Amino acid sequence: MKQSKRGVQGLTVVGSVALDTIKTPYGQVERALGGSAVYFSCAARFFTQVRLVGVVGDDFLNQHVALLEKLGIDLTGLERVKGKTFHWKGRYTDNLNEAITEKTELNVFANFVPKLLKQHVESQYLFLANIHPKIQYQVLQDVARPKWIACDTMNFWIQSARKDLLQVLKHVDISLMNDSEIKMFTGEHQIAKAVKALMKLGPKIVIVKRGEYGAWCFCGKKYYAMPAVLLSELKDPTGAGDSFAGGFLGYLAKSGKTSAETVKDAAVYGTVVASFNVQSFSLDRLALLTQRELIKRRSDYLKSIL
Amino acid sequence: MKQSKRGVQGLTVVGSVALDTIKTPYGQVERALGGSAVYFSCAARFFTQVRLVGVVGDDFLNQHVALLEKLGIDLTGLERVKGKTFHWKGRYTDNLNEAITEKTELNVFANFVPKLLKQHVESQYLFLANIHPKIQYQVLQDVARPKWIACDTMNFWIQSARKDLLQVLKHVDISLMNDSEIKMFTGEHQIAKAVKALMKLGPKIVIVKRGEYGAWCFCGKKYYAMPAVLLSELKDPTGAGDSFAGGFLGYLAKSGKTSAETVKDAAVYGTVVASFNVQSFSLDRLALLTQRELIKRRSDYLKSIL
Repeated sequence: MKQSKRGVQGLTVVGSVALDTIKTPYGQVERALGGSAVYFSCAARFFTQVRLVGVVGDDFLNQHVALLEKLGIDLTGLERVKGKTFHWKGRYTDNLNEAITEKTELNVFANFVPKLLKQHVESQYLFLANIHPKIQYQVLQDVARPKWIACDTMNFWIQSARKDLLQVLKHVDISLMNDSEIKMFTGEHQIAKAVKALMKLGPKIVIVKRGEYGAWCFCGKKYYAMPAVLLSELKDPTGAGDSFAGGFLGYLAKSGKTSAETVKDAAVYGTVVASFNVQSFSLDRLALLTQRELIKRRSDYLKSIL
Repeated sequence: MKQSKRGVQGLTVVGSVALDTIKTPYGQVERALGGSAVYFSCAARFFTQVRLVGVVGDDFLNQHVALLEKLGIDLTGLERVKGKTFHWKGRYTDNLNEAITEKTELNVFANFVPKLLKQHVESQYLFLANIHPKIQYQVLQDVARPKWIACDTMNFWIQSARKDLLQVLKHVDISLMNDSEIKMFTGEHQIAKAVKALMKLGPKIVIVKRGEYGAWCFCGKKYYAMPAVLLSELKDPTGAGDSFAGGFLGYLAKSGKTSAETVKDAAVYGTVVASFNVQSFSLDRLALLTQRELIKRRSDYLKSIL
């Protein structure tokens, strides 16, 4: 069978499913659908079959499940257990560049052990969203060798679980970090040096996220600078990085190619999908987004960057 | 005569000529050649005849004059008076994004009254570097109508001389501000809104400078996002904005065109020239820069931005 040789088509994501309470200068939401795996999935769904592996509590509303299923996301890996769903409470000040965490209630997520089914194990593309590097490493040991593995992380793990993170990075093809994270992790203040240092540890592709300034995509010796899409209305930056990752890896999974040119195109899709995400709270905009809108904005974007 | 109708070819800049004492994590210099008009001129010289209008004291070394003359900059508008040259002392911390001023000694610059000669008055292109808006306005009243006027400013004038700045902007075609300045000036936190507000006050072209993140170039209803050139070695960001402006306006002056396409090309040249400038202290790199290096880096840069 073709699939047993080449693995299962599509993309598996392991990460958080959350209820978010968020306040920005442009509004607020309470216990709205969120989490890295959710943002990622809702972005990647435009390109390929996405399979979400995560955990929620018994307070997770049926309407959330229904929405994700309607969007075509495979939830067979979404565990429901007794207790409360992971809850993040945060706010953003005027410039929207930095989230201030007010509360992190891990709840059922505290004991999360990803249970991978056959379709996850054999998935050709894998995204390890921002969770403890120990769990990321566990997943890496469980899966058959996917074509491409991407992983996200955060300053907290860089500081508290550096050794585990180093283990993970050894086996990862694509690393996504934001500007301050990669500098903190490598101890290099200049981005070119920081990327070089990170690549020595494993990843051959590095995405440096720069919030409203966009992202850099380093692919071997090549690199592409992508400004963020200019928006006239921005509401909530939560999930921008994960939706970027979803568009990026989703496109790679769809194309099946690994050339620098494909990586570049993927980064453009990541940028464009993420731009829709920040125009609303929660998944409101991504859930309504159409392929047609996506293609239109991509074309406008490409015109605006020389 | 052709010139009397169309004005004098080339570009006049009115601004500071300074001696800078600067410390960055990568080294330091004492009383090195600097100043907005100098950085601007050394960048613009690749494209057109630049005429510098400024003032220095009797401590300004002959070698500085000799260097600028060697680079082809017209110094007939550089006044030499008794006293000390404008001296700026500042430092940068690790990320190089923000200058911390330790000392500003205006010296002879405190009483600077630009004395425009015929070739300045009739100049087709004019750059009002970062000086008191009152002086900028005075220059505007002295010149014949140039084809294009660009002006820079800073947070200090935005706060202390807002009314004067508003007067200047009314008559200006191109406004250059950094990200925080335009937001402070317009009271808008989102860049698209801030630019719209600024354009209502006069300028039809707005350059938003974002330090190591590059710049946005807004031209009427079009806009172009330009990431900064990725550098493996960065030494001193002083003069980055002025050298950008020099490359930008220099190219516009050379081409003589006013289309959005030309503005875009000009912004690329601004970005590329500025990238050389930050690779050394003072004018060291810009003074040695060749046309050939400039063209080579421009071509590499264009490949790196999709």
